[in-house]
Amino acid sequence: MSQPPAEIIKLIKAANRVLISTHIFPDGDALGSQLALGYALESLGKEVYLYSEEPVSYILDFLPGCDKLITFLPERNDHFDCAISVDCGDSRRLGAGADDLICHSPFIAIDHHTGHQKFADISWVDQHRSSSGEMIYDLCRILGVKLTYEMAFCLYTAILADTGSFKYENTSPHTMRVAADLLEYGVKPAEICGYIFDNYSINRLRLLQEVLATLELFADDAIAFIHVTNELFDRTGALPADTELFINFPRSLKSVKVAIFLKETVDDLISVSMRAKGEVDVATVARAFGGGGHVNAAGFKLPDTTIDDVRQDLLKKLLPLV
Amino acid sequence: MSQPPAEIIKLIKAANRVLISTHIFPDGDALGSQLALGYALESLGKEVYLYSEEPVSYILDFLPGCDKLITFLPERNDHFDCAISVDCGDSRRLGAGADDLICHSPFIAIDHHTGHQKFADISWVDQHRSSSGEMIYDLCRILGVKLTYEMAFCLYTAILADTGSFKYENTSPHTMRVAADLLEYGVKPAEICGYIFDNYSINRLRLLQEVLATLELFADDAIAFIHVTNELFDRTGALPADTELFINFPRSLKSVKVAIFLKETVDDLISVSMRAKGEVDVATVARAFGGGGHVNAAGFKLPDTTIDDVRQDLLKKLLPLV
Repeated sequence: MSQPPAEIIKLIKAANRVLISTHIFPDGDALGSQLALGYALESLGKEVYLYSEEPVSYILDFLPGCDKLITFLPERNDHFDCAISVDCGDSRRLGAGADDLICHSPFIAIDHHTGHQKFADISWVDQHRSSSGEMIYDLCRILGVKLTYEMAFCLYTAILADTGSFKYENTSPHTMRVAADLLEYGVKPAEICGYIFDNYSINRLRLLQEVLATLELFADDAIAFIHVTNELFDRTGALPADTELFINFPRSLKSVKVAIFLKETVDDLISVSMRAKGEVDVATVARAFGGGGHVNAAGFKLPDTTIDDVRQDLLKKLLPLV
Repeated sequence: MSQPPAEIIKLIKAANRVLISTHIFPDGDALGSQLALGYALESLGKEVYLYSEEPVSYILDFLPGCDKLITFLPERNDHFDCAISVDCGDSRRLGAGADDLICHSPFIAIDHHTGHQKFADISWVDQHRSSSGEMIYDLCRILGVKLTYEMAFCLYTAILADTGSFKYENTSPHTMRVAADLLEYGVKPAEICGYIFDNYSINRLRLLQEVLATLELFADDAIAFIHVTNELFDRTGALPADTELFINFPRSLKSVKVAIFLKETVDDLISVSMRAKGEVDVATVARAFGGGGHVNAAGFKLPDTTIDDVRQDLLKKLLPLV
């Protein structure tokens, strides 16, 4: 486990105007880390700009500070003392305006993704961390930030989201101690879990029931596929964002080593999420299809294909691995 | 948050032969706490007897030390220096042999249930604790027990089971710090979560899909019922123990304040589990039907009735509360 490089501390301490971004389609760790770092640097008297390509999804709009996000790109010649990207493993995931972000110098990346593709001037990448939130917590401590309820709330959300509530292999004693400290600021675990995990609409539960019915098993039940079609969204009234965490159901099967969730998207792509247990490395599989992620959690998207074709293509890659 | 009374420490320190029991149908907290305390007292050189009315269910038989459990009652005149019950809130839940257990003196109760009905000579009851496991951890520290991997594994399982992996309101900073310490002994959160949460059989997932289809909502979707019949068990090949945690699905609905799971049992009872969010007190409701539990998690069983009748009777009690 590494600590933030002295150069990053020095640059942040010296900066007055800071731009902070994260990856597109931000999850709880991305957005929670971005907002917490924003609050932290503001508390140190800095002028902070929080950039996000798209508006916050309804799933995460409970996070304090979402209203501070700007969805327009800062001007190229706008002067920032530094720009920081949190939780982004690849410049392509900075979004359509990646070039207009990276041009701001020095550009700092803070990230915990396995296979992080360096794109910043200075990077603090630690794949042994549970979450970017855990890294931002340590950074705040070193910067002498006085944590507030809002920062603790955002950081707890970040850690919770990326550990699946302390269930995943990335949960370390340090993760737990950081979480304990954050609870001291009045954060209520049940409240945040309520927002993240127990926030189902009735349509979402109906969709879950339909998606569970699509379960298909291969390789002595070691490979499990589920899928969702646009027709199922129409029939249940559920939204694409409602499928978050559905992959955990096939993953929860005792026999399963790799779980795959195939989704038709509104823009006619097939979106693929994979979760592995044990030694199977799905990040490598995802990269073969132009995607990426962690060893145990990776994905990609493909145009001009069908759920059936993707399943067949993936099976060819996965069967030798289980 | 209270610490173990000095008298309990003194009695345990002085004891050479100790009988340890827990509640019937033991869950992860009950069995994990019992086994951990057994290992701990053995490590202090004591002779330990671990009693359980029935054999360990397949759901929990991953716990180390299960083979040490005895299912026959010790003789009434068998001399124990003390008997300890962990995680049991009511003498009736000690099982058919409750009288033959309590006759062993001094009888010590260590428990965290709200509405604990005193039955022991000396009790340490702390309803602010997440789990009995958290209490046994503190007890071990005070007794000077050198924790081992097995004890840490059992205690982590206990805490994990009763906090739903640190999701419930009972999760405190202390709970998190205890968990952090336990991880230092080499416990892998993902491994134990795998046993407790990701251990579905394919039949169990099929049953889940069928049970989700039974969802019924009342009071502007604030009260959610699901149920399972013996016919559904037969059709899916799933077992009664497979329904563990199904109640979390109706509970996860944003609009729901009380979730109820009605189950037909093989001995022709209707078993009722209730989970509340927020201020609704389901322990009081359960007591009105002869059951018990925590404010947010309670239950009871009724003979000579049907799922439909129990639903109607419960609705009368619940409608004024939401």
